[in-house]
Formats: sequence, C-alpha cells, structure tokens
Amino acid sequence: MSSDQWQLQSYMKERIQLIDLALDRYLPGAETLPTVLHDAMRYSVFAGGKRIRPILMLAACEAVGGEVKNVMPAACAIEMIHSYSLVHDDLPAMDDDDLRRGNATNHKVYGEATAILAGDGLLTEAFILLSNPDTWGDAPADKYCEVLHILAKSAGSRGMVGGQVVDMEAEAKPVDLPTLEYIHTHKTGALILAAIEIGALLGGASEQQHRALCRYGEAAGLAFQVADDILDIVADPSQLGKDIGSDQQRGKATYPALLGLAGARQRASELRELAFSSLDIFGDSARPLREIASYIVNRSC
Amino acid sequence: MSSDQWQLQSYMKERIQLIDLALDRYLPGAETLPTVLHDAMRYSVFAGGKRIRPILMLAACEAVGGEVKNVMPAACAIEMIHSYSLVHDDLPAMDDDDLRRGNATNHKVYGEATAILAGDGLLTEAFILLSNPDTWGDAPADKYCEVLHILAKSAGSRGMVGGQVVDMEAEAKPVDLPTLEYIHTHKTGALILAAIEIGALLGGASEQQHRALCRYGEAAGLAFQVADDILDIVADPSQLGKDIGSDQQRGKATYPALLGLAGARQRASELRELAFSSLDIFGDSARPLREIASYIVNRSC
Repeated sequence: MSSDQWQLQSYMKERIQLIDLALDRYLPGAETLPTVLHDAMRYSVFAGGKRIRPILMLAACEAVGGEVKNVMPAACAIEMIHSYSLVHDDLPAMDDDDLRRGNATNHKVYGEATAILAGDGLLTEAFILLSNPDTWGDAPADKYCEVLHILAKSAGSRGMVGGQVVDMEAEAKPVDLPTLEYIHTHKTGALILAAIEIGALLGGASEQQHRALCRYGEAAGLAFQVADDILDIVADPSQLGKDIGSDQQRGKATYPALLGLAGARQRASELRELAFSSLDIFGDSARPLREIASYIVNRSC
Repeated sequence: MSSDQWQLQSYMKERIQLIDLALDRYLPGAETLPTVLHDAMRYSVFAGGKRIRPILMLAACEAVGGEVKNVMPAACAIEMIHSYSLVHDDLPAMDDDDLRRGNATNHKVYGEATAILAGDGLLTEAFILLSNPDTWGDAPADKYCEVLHILAKSAGSRGMVGGQVVDMEAEAKPVDLPTLEYIHTHKTGALILAAIEIGALLGGASEQQHRALCRYGEAAGLAFQVADDILDIVADPSQLGKDIGSDQQRGKATYPALLGLAGARQRASELRELAFSSLDIFGDSARPLREIASYIVNRSC
C-alpha cells in the first residue's frame, strides 16, 4: 500500500468518526418515544456506511478554505437522507433485499411498516435539523435555507426519487446508455453533487470555485456509480456486504452490461480524469477531493 | 340548513378552489419526468381532500389580520405532507386500504413501489417549496425557515410519524385513554396544530394571540379525531368513502370503544367548547375558525 493510500485511509477514518459523533448528537436518542421508531432510524444510520456524501461535503468546504464545523449539520442531514433512501430501496416492494453492508436490512429487523416509517422519519429529520437556527453557527438564515433547498431538490421527485422510479421501470427490459446515465445522475449523482455544492456554498466558494467543484461533483457522482456496477460483478462478497451479481440477476441495466467490463473500467477512469482536471484551480486544499476520486474508481479496478 | 351552515359551506368551497389552484401551480406538472411519479403524486393530492389543514392555516392567518397570499405556499406544503401520510398509511404493510374517499388508493393504481416513492416525493416537495425564496413574498428567510421547522417537527418521528407507529403497535391490544390521546395528538393533532401555529406566525400574531390560537389548535385537532372515530361507526358509507366499522374490524382503539358513543360525543362537544373559549379574545375575524370547529364536531352528531 502506498503512502498516499495510507493517508487517505486515516483521513477517511478520522472523518467517519467525526461524522458519526455528530450524527449521534443530532439524531433523536434511542430512548425518545416511540422507542422502536428511533431505534429503527438509528439502526440504519449506524449500519457501517462509508459516509462518502458527508466526507465529500466537508472536503469541498475545506477546498475553498471553509471550516468543518460550519458544514457538519448539513453533512449529517445528507447522510440521514441517504440512509432513508437505502431503507426504502431495500423494501420488499422495491429491491427486496435482506442484506445491506452485511447486516439484515431495516424491514427484516423491524418489519415493513416500521421500516417505511423509519425512512419517513429520517427524511423529515434532515429538514428538522437544517431548519433549526441552533445548528447554523454563524451562517445567516438565508444561507441555510439555500442549503436546505439544494438538498431537498436533489433528494426529491426530480432528483434521487425520480432516479429510483426510472431504475425500477428499467428492470428486465433493454436500456440504452442515455437512460442509464439518467438513472445514475438522478439516483446517486444528484445527492453527491448536492454534497459538493453545499460544501462549496457553506465554505464561501467564489463563482469560479463553485463551478469547478460542481464539475468535480458531476464526474465523481457518475464515477461512483460506474464503479458500483463493476463491483457488483467482480468484488469479493464479504467486502460487498451483499450477494455478488445481484444487479445482473434482477435484470438491471449496468455499465458493464452496456459497455463490457473493460469499457466500464475505461469510462470510470475517464471520469476520474475529468474530476481531477476540474480541480486544477485548487492547490493542496483539494488534495482530499482528488484522493477520494481515485479511491472511488480504484476500488473497482 | 341554517344560514350559518350555508355560509360555512360556501366559504369552504371558495377556499378549496383557491388551495387547489395553488397546489396545481406549486406541484411539478404531470408532464415532468418521470411522468408516472408526478402523475402518482398528483393523483393523491387531487383525490377530493377536504383541505382542512390549509383552510385552518389560512383562517388562523386571517384571524390575526394577515393576508392569505402570504400563507398560501405553507398551506400547500402542509397539504402535500398530509397527502403523503395518507399514501403511506394506506400501503399493504400499514392499513392495507383499497379505498380512500371513494377512490382507489395510490398503490392500487400505481403499484406499491411507486406509491412509496410518490409519498417520499410529496414529503420532499413540501420542503422544496418552503425553502424556495420565490414563494416567500415579503417574508424574510428566517420566518420561512421557522415555518419549515414547525412543519417538519410536527410531521416527523416525534410528531405524526411517531403517532402512526404507536397506532400500529396498539392494534388488536387493549389501549387506555392516555395512549389513545397520545396517538391522536401526534398522528392527527400535530399537523393540525402546526397549521394553526404557522397561520398565526405568518399572519403576524402577538404572543397572546399565538397562545390563544395554539389552544384552539390543540382542541380542534383532538375534536377532529374524536369525530372521525364516531363517523367510522355511524356514517353513511357513501359519505365516508371507505368501509363502515373498518377501525373496529382492525381492532383499533377508538373513542367510542373506550367511552361509548354517548361519551365520545360528549368529549367532542367539550373540545368544541374549549376551542370556542380559546377564541374569546378575537372578534369577527375568528368567525371561520369558530364555524370550522362546529363543523368538525357536528358532522359526527
């Protein structure tokens, strides 16, 4: 393992710890009534997520010289929304998954009704948190309202939820590359781009910095999904935390299915280069963003 | 029919038309991609709802001398959240209802997965709308952020979603009056109280007016649920739009089951009197609120 990789691993580990501490503080305690609901909400938030979205948000904020503490509530809110989306995606009526990151999915532990409501609760909690002046620090109300607006749009029916609908419609029928890119820029990409945009906004990015970071966010978001599709085929099951080839079995359109494995890897590395070149205007402050883009792509190569 | 009743009916009809027009404007159009999702979202919003929450919000705003146009976006947001809650409550994993207001429920028309996502989309859309400066009119960002915070808290895991969890837990087991009141003050009452509070806030209520309106909101919210429980037993099925006695069949705790039919009616009229007396400090501007409290209780007597 190179020294660079080691540095990224310890950076990510430290960030995950910080984010987990903040999530624990911002989420209603497990003793809050009704306890089964808050237990279910916490179960999925603390089920071993890699915290990619909040880490990207913190890194974008730091790339433009902002402070981590100002962006932490938004970082936690985006992770709550990501967690809710996984709980609902895993439901029997959707992907019907029993395992997520090697653990039983929410509805397998708490039942379907509580899982639906735990997802609803997590989504709503993100907006409770972002609209609470106590969590804003020095930022004015209109800035946090803008953050909330970016996040809600990226998560809603013209963003992540819309991507999930098209993904379901595309199951077991031929899908072309533009449809596949629509699915991924919405289902996964929208929230990743929002993470970067919010980090830039709360970090005080100039217009030029904002545009550059958005280009990075688009490329990294798509790279993440291409890598995920590749991992579904080639990964070690114990690493993946779910069954290998589950996308294929479900007849899901994937990049390797459309471009071949070599073509998908080629696409992932093109996206990594695009992410890199977007960061040309930044110096060392963008090093974490560069290394995360490499990490996203390398884990599938 | 008395002249008062006629007036209330025409007032409600005019308000419903105004609210429906605004909802149509604020919701993504049915042609927005993915169309099936936006179609499903609109199906449940325009399925003949009585618009009680937005009407109460507008009426609370007017009671303190505020203008309807300033509160309309929040009125639409609360109706989107109410609609999402019905879509999720009707799901097979929850109440498993085929009919809602005489129409097929969302999942019967669009399938379970799309219904879950349509609910998610509606909940998120409420926050997209409330965080959009274009919809705020003259109100400053921190006022709309406060509105959003009140609404999110009332809808979340310590409000409406929490009430639904306890309601489900209470099925087919003996429930005492405190538990029943917990269920209703959370499942239905929280959103009704939020409607009143937001109307008061955006209308520019004084502290005294705000307290008085919150007392009204608590009483009216509970009265609404007691009346609903009574209607489940005594209503004409064609009026109810669902099967008579469905709460009883499901073993749900209700006020008539705990207090008897006469006792439940007594409780409803006590709550109406409490709602009335809370409005003593207001003159004619609170007439709609008084008449709505009467309407809520009278429809069950």
